[in-house]
Amino acid sequence: MSSPAASFEEPAALGAQFLAEIREQPRALEGLLAQEREFARVAEVVRERRVSLVRMVGHGSSDNAASYGVYTFGLLPRLTALRDSISLSVYYDSVPDMSGSLVIGLSQSGRTPDVVEYVELARRAGALTVAITNDAGSDLAAAAEAVLPLGAGEEHAVAATKTYLNTLGALVLLAAYTAGAQEGRRCGDDLRSVAEQLDSAIPELERRLPAVALPFSFVGRMFVVGRGVELATAREIALKLLETCRVAAEPLTATDLAHGPVAALDPFFPVWAIASDDGTLPAVLEAAARVSEAGATLVASGTAADRVSKPDYLLPVPRPSDPLLAPLLSVVPGQLFAWALARAKRLDPDRPTGLSKVTFAR
Amino acid sequence: MSSPAASFEEPAALGAQFLAEIREQPRALEGLLAQEREFARVAEVVRERRVSLVRMVGHGSSDNAASYGVYTFGLLPRLTALRDSISLSVYYDSVPDMSGSLVIGLSQSGRTPDVVEYVELARRAGALTVAITNDAGSDLAAAAEAVLPLGAGEEHAVAATKTYLNTLGALVLLAAYTAGAQEGRRCGDDLRSVAEQLDSAIPELERRLPAVALPFSFVGRMFVVGRGVELATAREIALKLLETCRVAAEPLTATDLAHGPVAALDPFFPVWAIASDDGTLPAVLEAAARVSEAGATLVASGTAADRVSKPDYLLPVPRPSDPLLAPLLSVVPGQLFAWALARAKRLDPDRPTGLSKVTFAR
Repeated sequence: MSSPAASFEEPAALGAQFLAEIREQPRALEGLLAQEREFARVAEVVRERRVSLVRMVGHGSSDNAASYGVYTFGLLPRLTALRDSISLSVYYDSVPDMSGSLVIGLSQSGRTPDVVEYVELARRAGALTVAITNDAGSDLAAAAEAVLPLGAGEEHAVAATKTYLNTLGALVLLAAYTAGAQEGRRCGDDLRSVAEQLDSAIPELERRLPAVALPFSFVGRMFVVGRGVELATAREIALKLLETCRVAAEPLTATDLAHGPVAALDPFFPVWAIASDDGTLPAVLEAAARVSEAGATLVASGTAADRVSKPDYLLPVPRPSDPLLAPLLSVVPGQLFAWALARAKRLDPDRPTGLSKVTFAR
Repeated sequence: MSSPAASFEEPAALGAQFLAEIREQPRALEGLLAQEREFARVAEVVRERRVSLVRMVGHGSSDNAASYGVYTFGLLPRLTALRDSISLSVYYDSVPDMSGSLVIGLSQSGRTPDVVEYVELARRAGALTVAITNDAGSDLAAAAEAVLPLGAGEEHAVAATKTYLNTLGALVLLAAYTAGAQEGRRCGDDLRSVAEQLDSAIPELERRLPAVALPFSFVGRMFVVGRGVELATAREIALKLLETCRVAAEPLTATDLAHGPVAALDPFFPVWAIASDDGTLPAVLEAAARVSEAGATLVASGTAADRVSKPDYLLPVPRPSDPLLAPLLSVVPGQLFAWALARAKRLDPDRPTGLSKVTFAR
């Protein structure tokens, strides 16, 4: 082949790992489910210890997934769960009594230094500590009393995809088994159905997204709006856009948008709204209407995307049997949008400038 | 005077209320302190009820202040405090047993609908409910068992300043009195000193900021970085930039910056770093160094701004007697930067497009 053809082929390589791992997600989720018994076993310990508070810690995509854990524990075993402050314990030496707390350390690599340190401090302070990580031989796994492996297979692209999805799966499966064995088994079955839904949804989204992403090539900033369980999705999609596409994307709850940020909108400041088929839908629809009024381009995704009035782009995903599982599906259009937009901008989502797969930063 | 002179005078009016309220902050803080006895009284009830968990709810600037409450309660009475999910209770009807919880509803106007609804649900679920609001006659005040008025005087500019500062003051004063009467009185005295430090710092910052802000007139996006107690400040400065200057400003912890967003930096993507003289300083200095390496313009502020290596702009603030009070000082350069930048862009920070003082959005 002549050299022009060769240079035409080059973009195919940009983000090849990222795309491969997006496609692998149904298999990765099955990898998590292969360890369902471990979740049942750890949940039994959680129940025995009469846990009253769930403290989650992590950074980046792991912290985004923790936003979902607030709802899985809040809705299933009805336990209050929070994304705990690492600074209080690690930097200010103020570790509370943690007996009665379940501590969940979240790190794909299991090597995030302050997460490992927090888990060590929490274990000494009486917490039941659980590591959720893709590396069962990591420092984090060693620091915690119990380990729940993500089972996603090794992740190569710097931007997380399948480990994020499996962290969501881990947080809902552990919460469900903590609520009871029956709830746990039902959740496992529902997650198996989600894997099938992902299998059928991904190829079509992959075909559609390049044409959707192209007009965003010169966009420098976006808001990504979600509420309730989909706040995690909004945070994760915004992070993908930041790290792979260099777009200043900020995640907001539907209500926060109205408390100030709406003032910044204009036709060159698009908004991505995730509409989910649950109690938060009216708030998201109201926020989407304000976005349209402000003249901003509106992307509507999620299980209830079709309920959004007059979006410029519509990216619906299938509805899972339990609406709580929607975030495992609704993140995918965002991942594929980031992949397609990075390629349109000739950026390599496999190796974003200045990032490495394992982050040792304080 | 001829009309060119008149048009030269016009910008003086832009943000006149916003500036007046920034200047009023020392007096507003004294207004809060005039009600110190109320804080002592409510704290006594908190102690009597054997509270084990503090749940805070609010939106916008109130939610930013809640990030500070995590540290005031964590460090002083050593209580775990969280920014609770409103969606769980209000949209998903999943209200946990809240006996043993102190619930703090935060709203300047006292009229934010889902905050009022959350407080009503929490009170029925057994929580000790406290409203912190600038309107003691509001719905929120009526919904809660106890009211702590901000005493800031009426706020006219849409973008909050003195009510934000007083919310910080309220959260540290209540936490200190919850720790004990002696701690409470010491905190009151320390806050009186902060009011004096603000008095001397504000005029000089007001003189300096227009020249600092001018080169940012064409900036569309920024990161604002803080950690620990200064995460609240990072969130609040980012919100001021969004709502008054139409800058897509995203708040990040120093560590989160390294977990992805650093990849988006370039010379046209400035970063504002808040360096505080406490245990989080090494993490913030490390993040600031990464910003400089990425070639991004760096603004350093905070009580330890002088410790940041080679910032492009340096905006230090006085050190309070207790480092925990630093956020009451470090927010001021951000407020004045937003005022000056809005004026440079001929925007009116008193009346941002699409916003009103009271937000009724869901």
